Amino acid sequence: MTVKIGVLGYGNLGRGIESEIRKNPDMELYGVFTRRDKASVKAAEGTRVFNIEEAADHKDDIDVMILCGGSATDLPKQTPEYASMFNVVDSFDTHANISEHFDSVCASALKAGKTALISCGWDPGMFSLARLYGSCILPSGKDYTFWGKGISQGHSDAIRRIEGVLDARQYTIPVKEALEAAKSGEKPELTTRQKHTRECFVVAKDGADLEAIESQIVNMPNYFADYDTTVHFVTMEELKRDHSGMPHGGTVIRSGETGPENEYKDVIEYKLKLDSNPYFTSSVLLAFARAVARLNREGKTGALTVFDIAPAYLSPLSGEELRKHML
Amino acid sequence: MTVKIGVLGYGNLGRGIESEIRKNPDMELYGVFTRRDKASVKAAEGTRVFNIEEAADHKDDIDVMILCGGSATDLPKQTPEYASMFNVVDSFDTHANISEHFDSVCASALKAGKTALISCGWDPGMFSLARLYGSCILPSGKDYTFWGKGISQGHSDAIRRIEGVLDARQYTIPVKEALEAAKSGEKPELTTRQKHTRECFVVAKDGADLEAIESQIVNMPNYFADYDTTVHFVTMEELKRDHSGMPHGGTVIRSGETGPENEYKDVIEYKLKLDSNPYFTSSVLLAFARAVARLNREGKTGALTVFDIAPAYLSPLSGEELRKHML
Repeated sequence: MTVKIGVLGYGNLGRGIESEIRKNPDMELYGVFTRRDKASVKAAEGTRVFNIEEAADHKDDIDVMILCGGSATDLPKQTPEYASMFNVVDSFDTHANISEHFDSVCASALKAGKTALISCGWDPGMFSLARLYGSCILPSGKDYTFWGKGISQGHSDAIRRIEGVLDARQYTIPVKEALEAAKSGEKPELTTRQKHTRECFVVAKDGADLEAIESQIVNMPNYFADYDTTVHFVTMEELKRDHSGMPHGGTVIRSGETGPENEYKDVIEYKLKLDSNPYFTSSVLLAFARAVARLNREGKTGALTVFDIAPAYLSPLSGEELRKHML
Repeated sequence: MTVKIGVLGYGNLGRGIESEIRKNPDMELYGVFTRRDKASVKAAEGTRVFNIEEAADHKDDIDVMILCGGSATDLPKQTPEYASMFNVVDSFDTHANISEHFDSVCASALKAGKTALISCGWDPGMFSLARLYGSCILPSGKDYTFWGKGISQGHSDAIRRIEGVLDARQYTIPVKEALEAAKSGEKPELTTRQKHTRECFVVAKDGADLEAIESQIVNMPNYFADYDTTVHFVTMEELKRDHSGMPHGGTVIRSGETGPENEYKDVIEYKLKLDSNPYFTSSVLLAFARAVARLNREGKTGALTVFDIAPAYLSPLSGEELRKHML
């Protein structure tokens, strides 16, 4: 059977879904739903564009609605709202609020008999799975998560809000020595500053006080103050030419020990190297949307996370085929 | 609640379970069951040793029996047999026979209302999961599995069966250039010979024909003929001193592409570096035994593989704790 996918929000993630769904022959793009003026939206050939207000009219035609809004203001409202009409998948990543988000989405989905997967993608998502599997199969051990090298949208935005800044991109870079130490099996204690550096490419307005901008960046609490941060001022042309991609990735490490005397060291490493963060994330969301459609058909309703989904549900192959070709 | 574990077969894997269960506070070793004379078995302090014939008498006291026999002759018989009395976990790894094994175990477990997980460990097991997740989240792509550097028991045994050989250890070694090529995102075609080399340490009998032994090793079909193989003759002392460990590991790589023109390359890498293959495998079996106990309590019976188990079942933590600390 075909899984019909709706896309709510047509930014980088929405465009990613529109592209990556073509690599899944058992899935079909029903259409995208946007807040913008439909006529102004340039979608790929064959993509139907609807206004977000029309979504409810299509609730019986869509197997899973993938919510592509942001975690700050969109998803806390949208996910519970749309889970009352659709099976949904979101990529909610505001860590501190996941429990609250889960509860509100769960109540809405249960009431409607829908299935709602929250916090999907790669972190939270695939990295969460790596942390969970690692901690369960090596209960005596230590976790490390490294991010990058990659563009952090949140940090880039924070720089853009500084007075005198026209545009900016921020790279999060894992420190090679720290990464090697984490993989060594020696379970080092690593501080925030030891694990990552931050590199910023900033376009300033004509006549702006560059020293003041740099100082505001490197001393910004939460975002930069705890890191060694480098600031480069570049022209808008240079920024567009050299820093317009959205690469990302990272590594989750579980360093543990086995043996009666803990004499054996074991290191598990899960690493992603991604040319495009939003396209990869979209691809992950689609695999989990397949699982959500199936689970709903089996009567499993309410909110879920990636932890609650047996891996076989992600695959278009049957159990028999999986045992034959993947095990 | 506590999960009571029985161990059937008291070799390397059985000893691994006996050791690693202590790192899981919610689990308890009920006892080990052996084919040998009980009195001759030296178990750890506090471990109860039973004869294998006594197993049936304890069927109501054990939540999960972990079957630690070999795939060649033990498990094809034992897993269906014990699945008629116990929830079981095995590490059956004869690839060509997995479907048949699954079916026979499933029939037995279903009839008895038991839950039976087959082919658990790291390959099959964690590597299978890496392959499955990788292929689902990057449907357009290519898989690579590299093993080692590590001791292959099967290959070591094959050498030991050659006339004139007293003892032997065989290391499977991934070729660095092939590993780098697979991680490059370029999706190279790699032959068996390009991916791994094999290095053998052999103790020959006094007066044995070393050239004949070497020739028999490097030309052995299936085991060595398709590989570049190096043979070193060593003394028994050297073998025991330098090659008595059981390190292993390997890497599963999914190299895929996203984007409307497949212009973005993504590489997923799952790597294990293990000082002790049997102790790590035991640790994996225990995490999955926890899941099996729970699934049986929920009424899920029959045969399963690692693909069928939602990751949350592996953890002693509640869903709420997992969402808070692992997501």
